[in-house]
Order: sequence, then structure tokens, then C-alpha cells
Amino acid sequence: MAGADNRSGGENKEQRFELMKVALGEAEADLAIVNGSVVNVYTREVLERASVLVKGNKIAYVGKNVGKSIGSLTRVIDAAGKTLIPGLIDGHAHLDSMYSISELSRYALAGGTTTIITETSNIASVLACEGTTAFLRSSKNQPIKVFVTVPPMVTLSPVTEEHAITVNDLRRLLRRKGIIGLGEPYWGTVVGGNQRVLDLITETISMGKKVDGHSAGASSNKLQAYISSGVSSCHEPITAEEVMERLRLGLFIFIREGEIRRDLEAISRIKDENIDFTRLALSSDGIAPCQLIDDGYMDFVVQKAINLGFNPVLAVQMASINTARYFGLDHLIGGIAPGKYADIVIVPDLRTIRVACVISNGQVVFENGRPVVLPKRYKYPSSVRNTVHLARNFKAEDFAIPVEGSGSQVKVRLIDQFTHLVTREDFADIPVSDGQLKPDASQDILKVAAIERFYHTGKSFVGLIRGIGLKHGAIGTSYAWDCGDIIVVGANETDMAQVVNRIKELNGGIVVCAGNKILAEIALPVAGTMSTESMETIATRLHEIQRAATELGCNSLDIRTTLAVLPTPAIPFLRICEHGLFNLRQNQFVDLIVE
Amino acid sequence: MAGADNRSGGENKEQRFELMKVALGEAEADLAIVNGSVVNVYTREVLERASVLVKGNKIAYVGKNVGKSIGSLTRVIDAAGKTLIPGLIDGHAHLDSMYSISELSRYALAGGTTTIITETSNIASVLACEGTTAFLRSSKNQPIKVFVTVPPMVTLSPVTEEHAITVNDLRRLLRRKGIIGLGEPYWGTVVGGNQRVLDLITETISMGKKVDGHSAGASSNKLQAYISSGVSSCHEPITAEEVMERLRLGLFIFIREGEIRRDLEAISRIKDENIDFTRLALSSDGIAPCQLIDDGYMDFVVQKAINLGFNPVLAVQMASINTARYFGLDHLIGGIAPGKYADIVIVPDLRTIRVACVISNGQVVFENGRPVVLPKRYKYPSSVRNTVHLARNFKAEDFAIPVEGSGSQVKVRLIDQFTHLVTREDFADIPVSDGQLKPDASQDILKVAAIERFYHTGKSFVGLIRGIGLKHGAIGTSYAWDCGDIIVVGANETDMAQVVNRIKELNGGIVVCAGNKILAEIALPVAGTMSTESMETIATRLHEIQRAATELGCNSLDIRTTLAVLPTPAIPFLRICEHGLFNLRQNQFVDLIVE
Repeated sequence: MAGADNRSGGENKEQRFELMKVALGEAEADLAIVNGSVVNVYTREVLERASVLVKGNKIAYVGKNVGKSIGSLTRVIDAAGKTLIPGLIDGHAHLDSMYSISELSRYALAGGTTTIITETSNIASVLACEGTTAFLRSSKNQPIKVFVTVPPMVTLSPVTEEHAITVNDLRRLLRRKGIIGLGEPYWGTVVGGNQRVLDLITETISMGKKVDGHSAGASSNKLQAYISSGVSSCHEPITAEEVMERLRLGLFIFIREGEIRRDLEAISRIKDENIDFTRLALSSDGIAPCQLIDDGYMDFVVQKAINLGFNPVLAVQMASINTARYFGLDHLIGGIAPGKYADIVIVPDLRTIRVACVISNGQVVFENGRPVVLPKRYKYPSSVRNTVHLARNFKAEDFAIPVEGSGSQVKVRLIDQFTHLVTREDFADIPVSDGQLKPDASQDILKVAAIERFYHTGKSFVGLIRGIGLKHGAIGTSYAWDCGDIIVVGANETDMAQVVNRIKELNGGIVVCAGNKILAEIALPVAGTMSTESMETIATRLHEIQRAATELGCNSLDIRTTLAVLPTPAIPFLRICEHGLFNLRQNQFVDLIVE
Repeated sequence: MAGADNRSGGENKEQRFELMKVALGEAEADLAIVNGSVVNVYTREVLERASVLVKGNKIAYVGKNVGKSIGSLTRVIDAAGKTLIPGLIDGHAHLDSMYSISELSRYALAGGTTTIITETSNIASVLACEGTTAFLRSSKNQPIKVFVTVPPMVTLSPVTEEHAITVNDLRRLLRRKGIIGLGEPYWGTVVGGNQRVLDLITETISMGKKVDGHSAGASSNKLQAYISSGVSSCHEPITAEEVMERLRLGLFIFIREGEIRRDLEAISRIKDENIDFTRLALSSDGIAPCQLIDDGYMDFVVQKAINLGFNPVLAVQMASINTARYFGLDHLIGGIAPGKYADIVIVPDLRTIRVACVISNGQVVFENGRPVVLPKRYKYPSSVRNTVHLARNFKAEDFAIPVEGSGSQVKVRLIDQFTHLVTREDFADIPVSDGQLKPDASQDILKVAAIERFYHTGKSFVGLIRGIGLKHGAIGTSYAWDCGDIIVVGANETDMAQVVNRIKELNGGIVVCAGNKILAEIALPVAGTMSTESMETIATRLHEIQRAATELGCNSLDIRTTLAVLPTPAIPFLRICEHGLFNLRQNQFVDLIVE
């Protein structure tokens, strides 16, 4: 089966026939895992002292009657005293940022995660369709399975909007193996009646695929209106009450435990409800390099669920069969049963998700504490590696905010950084100096700019932000949610210019600069959002960036994310893009200078 | 939405937008069912004093905040003190025999069954692809939703096999709205390695559709081999143990309670297992006219499940969301939630499935004890209504069994009718009279013939059968499983000829004849398997046929089914078709005269 795309089911009559022969005892298995306790996610039982026979990349038999199918060519793994669980699934992720699939796979497989369902909104915010298809190619024929959703490209940026995917694009994408739905049409956009996004939802449902929603903060009638649109899942509820409201309305729910938020503990008391848990699953919503290195991935999340009191089999179901069923993938993955992919994790016992051995696609990929099979490195085409299209270097003057009139001060609208993700709108009187507005770090008034960097438009906008805390220097990123802008904040315009120019040199990246000196940086040459370095190097670079920012006075404990989300319509409520400031409550662009 | 096919989801952005406006209180609902107890099949809860808003054919809102959406044009149904459950689903049926969809719908809707998943093996055994597509057309735009599976046409008949559907046929069919999978590739055929059927299974899975299996009697390694082939569900287990074995292997299970068997009571003790019940559902596997008239349909089955001790919400789930999820239809049907079809049944309380009002596709179709909306009558094209192609009338001589040689008796292989469905193989010494074998009703040795009647081949075979019990006359049917043969048994050849000739005149039917007189009959002009009469008339005719057969000495309590299954490879074990006797254990044709 070499070369087959594991996401298609690799449907092949000859292989099915071989599986049947192994089950019947008429052919030898390639791999036999014998005498283990097999967790049955279909019935919620554990079958003791059972064996699993594998032929090629699939399971042929699970049970106790295996004698005739174990022969001289069969590799036998003795799992006596150990427990077999299905390969873990991350039900909602964002893997198109920071690291490559091959680097992610190293850590995922070592922790028993064998399938990931991921959004492609980061790469597609820049490259639209080409981004999603390029990402799909990078994940093809890997020892891990990656299924992707198409981003509806809900954006505040008029430039990005102009190039957003169409219904025809979507139709073409949804026909491809490995693309299983539409991801994250934000609820405000949908309920607000965005016709292009409603068209995308309708087309996705017509094609029998799933619309994975994003209903952060919605409730009651607005939530029901959102669900009426055809959205069928969501990873955004943050309390048990929000989960219950959504489950009752027929939504499938992913509990999030990852980089952006950790909701599992707050939601965990749902375990005491006497309800159907098969519509509830676990997800990361994206995982940071340092989390992967320090904690692990879905193995960590499942262990945490068990520690929080979830029945261990339920915890495993929430990271395997439940997600597989929701996405219509349970004929391929999610359980240890005949005909499914041989994705199996051997752990010491049902309460201890510490990986001893991982089988993915029938191959032992991790054992004795080290990887056996390495993921393939994928080199993105040059069109994906050259996405910072700025016609010229930036100068301090490019960040000027000129003011008309002769007053000594003006009232301006500020982005007020409320949490490290949420912003509010505020107003302040700012002195006019030489007909311009200047940043004033002593008052924590910084400049913030959004620069369109892909479509050669040269468009940019400069505003003011409070709450970041920088005393000196500037920080910028080409990794920004839902548009292809560079976002840069700074205490002075010279450092802002240097940050942008360095990002241009790097072909994308995150850069911290002060006193005309680069203090920390990471190159993100793939679409301006992904590094080609090792996970360890990326973690180190990101740590250096955070430390440099903190030393410059930055308040945010995750400055790269604070900057990245500034242009997103997903998080309330005053946002920025190359066209200006956008007030999500009013659903419109608003002026910087108000009087 | 008039004219839209309700099976496609009728995906339509404008309609979704209208639903959203109703949910938001910005538009009036067409229908509001207020103040009822709403059964939530997603969480297994009941929401008291809640209301459901309907716009067009879908649900816009479920809850308590409905004020602004109920206006002067909204029809309001007060459900105070009553309970709302989702429209019931029959998960596995055979509706292409005896009655038309319109007649079935009258009874189904009156009992709250709003969706049926049905095989099309009867009509397709005669007409192949054209049968399935004709049946699909008959069920289009009805007030009930019908989804069909494509029969793999597993047959013993070489003539039928020659015209069986190909992978290309299947691909074309599976692309049509309303066709959701492949139905009933019998396990023996699959495990036996039938390459055409394995090709059909592979193609179905590749296209993301379901293979609904038939694993009667299989267990252990053979069952696992069958499941390895890609089959994902089965309605054939008859005990709780058989159900558990299949659930553990990842199969979805339909409990059968209908015409062929009633397995619910035997399986019901599974209710006490502490397992995941979301992979278990209820089905009829086909329902007889007298059952529909006397007992009801899925309403009867759900009530019986409740009476047998199943939790009432679970009983409802097993006849709604569970089946919808398995077939990937839960975005359309199966629960009372925003965005789903408004298929709702109002019953007195959760333990009493006695229908007060039925809403299907948003229309009130049954209330105050009578239907409000009548199904459409569909006239099949003449190619479907003319399927008995016999070149000439039959004579007694056509049922002769000539014997070579000069012995006074020969040893023959008999079909031994063991139950009214199961046959065994037996042997007997039969006297030779004028170089022929004759039936001998005094010894309960009858003649049985299979006559190919569709492809103009003129092929037929005559054998001997014991256990039917006829003392006089003959009985025949053009409704026969898995081939297009007429099956006739008789105590004498003259009556057998008259039976066949009358079936020819009727263009298909079931006929009882004795002493050259027709005692009872029903015309089945649609493909030789379906009547165009009313359900009541059909029930009367079938009752007359059974009574006439019984008066002739027939042992079978369901002679029309006893005859119909004689050519099927689905039931053990000595079978007949136009080519001869087939021993299913040996998987080969066997001789009538053995020495």
C-alpha cells in the first residue's frame, strides 16, 4: 500500500481480500499485538487478553482466536499486562502555523496522536485555495493522517475579501480526498447575513460535508439562528453550561485544551450529567511548540480528562471514535476493529496515557522511547515561500499619522488591549506634534500598523493601541489571523520600520527590535506563517521573542498571539487591518480620529 | 420549497436565511407547536413546556423564547400536556414488494414514521438498475422521506447474475440524491470471495457511502472476515449475544421487528448492559400489509421496546437519531433541533406512542385521527409493468421430470422445508412412472418449479419438495427473492400450469389454483412484485391466498414468503432457481437425481 493516501481509505479490493484471509486464518498477519487489554470504544468495554492482527495498514481481526494467522513472517508484540487504545485524534486544530507537518508529526506520533483534523485558515488567509491545497500536499502520505477543512476566509481585510474563495473554489476543494468540510464561519458573520459565507455553508452541506462552526459567546436565539444556517459543530464553548446548550441544539462539541485556551477543567463537571457523551470530543484548537515539547499532545489532554474524573474509556472515546463518527470517518479510524486502519497505542494501563508503543497505518512508528519511522519533510513550492511582497523598504515616515487642522490635540479611538486576546474600544486626547500623532510609551500609547503584504497593493494603516506595555522598540509578525497583513506595534517608528524590513528580508517571520537592533526573531518563510526549522529550534526562538518583548516592557504573556489576532473578526471587538479600525459590535470600519 | 426533493436536504441559502430570521424573532414562523415536552435525542433529556418554530419544511427554533416569531400568519398547535418526539425512522426495510410507496406512506405517516431506509432488492432482482431508479422516482417528493440502498444482486440464478449491476452502474446510482449505500451483500458470498460483490463494496466505501450488511448466523473469525470487507451495519442478529458480538466489532446494528422475524423481545435484555447504545437502532426489515393495518409501523415497534423495558428516550433514539447518524443523515433528520427537517410526532406522553398529530417536512400530515395530506400515486412506466415475458402458455408437460434408464425408482435430492423459511437437503427413493417422476401428495412430495420470466430465456427447472403439505392444487408467485423467477409448487402439473398462465395474464402476481379453478390471487403488475391496489385490498387478497393454501393442506403460515425465499442465497440451505438446485453449504449446483 506504499504511496496510497491514507486519508482516502486506500480502498482496494485486494487488500480487503487479504484482511479477510487473515481473519479466516488462511493468511499470515504482518503484525500481531498479543495478550493485551483492548479498549472497545464502540461498546465502552475492555476486552482482556486479546490480540489484534494487522495486515498491511489495516486491522484484520481482534479477539482470541488468532493461532493460525501468526506465522514466521508475523512480527509479534507482546502486550501482556498492557492496554491498547485507538490512535488518538485531535478533532479541531490549526496546524498551518509555526511548524511543518513533519515536525508536528514527530511529537504527535510519539504521544500516540495518529490523526489530526485541522483548519487551514492561516495559510489560506494569504494564499486562498492555493494555501489549502499546498498544505494538503504537505500532509499527504505521512505516517500521521491529516484531514483538513476549507476556511471560508471570513476577514475584515477588503484586500483579502476580494481574493476569498468562491463557491466554485470550494466545490473543487471538497471533492479532494482529505478535505472534509468547511471550517469556522464565525457566528457573527453568518447571523449577520454574509451572503458569500452562507453560499459556502449551503454548498458544503449539499456535498455531504461538515460545517465546523465557531460560536464563541453566542447563546439563545442568536445561537439557534447560527445553527439554523447548517453549522454542525463547535469548539468554542468555555463552560459546561455553554456545552450543554449546544449539545441540546444538536451541535457536536469539541472541548478545547491547547494553545489559545484551556477549557477542559471548567467543562469537566459535565462528566456528572446523565447525558449522551458520544457527541462530545477533545481538541487542541492548535498547540504551541513548547506545549508539545513540555506536556505532549492529545496524550496530555486525555490524561488530564482522566485526572479530572472522566471515565477513562470515555476520555479515550472523546479523542477517537466520537470525532471519527462526527466527520464520517469512523469506517476508517477511531476504533480497534476489523477493517479499520491499524492506528493503535499501547499504554501501561487505562488510567495512564504514557505511550509505550505506537502503531500508525499498520507501522510501528514509536517504541522504546524513540521514533522508528520519521515523517517526510515537504518542501513547499516557491510561490508559497515568497509571500512578503513589499515594493520597497519601510521608513519611519511610513508610520506617520498626519493630522489636519491646527488644534494642539485630537480625540482618537484607541485599541485597548483588555486581555492578551480581547480588545475594547477606548478614546483619548492625544497631542499633535508637527501635524502628527506620536506614540507615547510613558502613557502606554503605542503605534500599531497593518500592512498588506501579499497582493502588491502597498496598502497599510497606522493606528494607536494601549495595553501592550512596550517601553521601547517594536514587535511585528507576518503571522496574523484571517488576512495577509503584517502587524507591527512599536514605541517608535524607526524600530517599526526595521521590524517590517527584517520580516521582508526573512520572507516572513516574527521580529523584535529596539534601538535599531534586532533582539529576537524567527523566520516563517512558508506563507509567512510557518517555519522550516525543527520544533525545538522554533520553541527556542519563540521563547527568545517572548523574553525580548517582556524585557521591553510588554505585558502580554503571549505577544505573538496578541499581535496575530489583532486583525481577526473572531475575537471582540476593536480590530485592525490594512484598511483601518473595525468595530465588530457595529460591524463597520470606524475612524481613528473622532474629533 | 414545493418540488424540492426532501432527500437532498433541499439546500437553499434563502431558506436557511429565513430560518435564521425566525430564530432571531425577525420573521414569522409558518407553524409553532407550543408548550409541549420536547424529547431531546441528542442529550437524552426532555425539555418541558417548550415550543418549536417551523419555517417552510425545517425547524428554526426550539425553546422558550418564541414570542416575536409567532404572528398572524403562524399556525399554532397547542401541545400543552403532550410530548413531541422526532419523526420515526425505519432503519432497514424492503418496501419494493406488495404495496406502493403511496399506500405504505398512508400507514407510515399515520403512525409517525416519516423516514424509511429501504433496500430495493426485489424490484432490482428483476429490473436491475432500472428497478432501483424507478423505485426512487416513485418515492420522490412524497410527504414521507425514502432513502434507498443499491442491491448488489447476489443471486443463485445464472440469468440474473448475467444482468447484475456493475461497478459503473453502482457509481452512477450512488451519485443520485436519495441513494445512500449498498444493501445486503450476504456474508457467505463476500467471505466466499465473490469478486464482483467485493468490487461493489470497495466502490461504495470509496464514495463515502455505507455498506449495510447481512451476517445472519455468522460469528467469530467468519464474522470478522465479513466486517473486514468494509460492511458497517447489520439487521440480522437474533439474540442479545449476537448483537453484542457485532457491536464490539464496530458494526451498527438494527434490531428487526417486522414481517420476516420479530427479534426485539429476544434482544431486549441488552437494555441492561452498561454500553453505548448509540450504535443500536430499530427496523422492520419489511412490514406486511396486515401488520400495518392491525398493529402499526415503527410506532408499534417503539411502543414494544418501551413495554419491554427500554428507557423511553432510548427507544425513541433507536428509531430516530441513531439511524440518522449511521447513514450520515443527522444534519437533515433524526432530532428536533434548528436547521433539521420539521418531522415531529405529538404523542400523549413519553411512554405512550399513540399518535395525535404528525408533522412531516413542516406540513401537518395527520391529525384528529385522519390524514391531512395524501401521498402522491406514482404510475410506473410500462417497462416496469410488463415483466412477465413467457413466450407461450405452460402445459402440464412443461413440469415433467423425465428419467433416463429403466429402473422402477430413482434416488432424488429433495428440498426439505424445515421451517417456513429454512430448507434442508434430504434424499428419497421415488418411483418412476412412464419414464417420469410424479408428485405424490400422500407422501407430501410436491413438484417445485423455477421459471425465468423476464429475460425471454425460456429457462426453467423442476424439482421436488417436501414439507409444504399441499394435498391438491398449486400455488405460485412472481415475487421471489434475488431473481426474476416465477416459483410454483403443486400437487399436480395441470394446476401448476394454470397458476403460471394466470400469473402471466396478470403480468405478475400470486395465484392459488386447484381442480383447474383459481381459488385466490393477487395481481402484482409492478415488476411482478408490487400491487397497485389499496393496502386494505392487498391485505384481503393475501389473507384469501393464505386461507386457500391452508384449505389445500399447506403447512406454512406464510406460504407467499415460503415460496418467495426458495431462490434466495440468504437463507439456508437447499435452494432452487431456473438453473437447478443449489446447495449453499457446498456453494454449488447439485443434481436432482443422484442415482
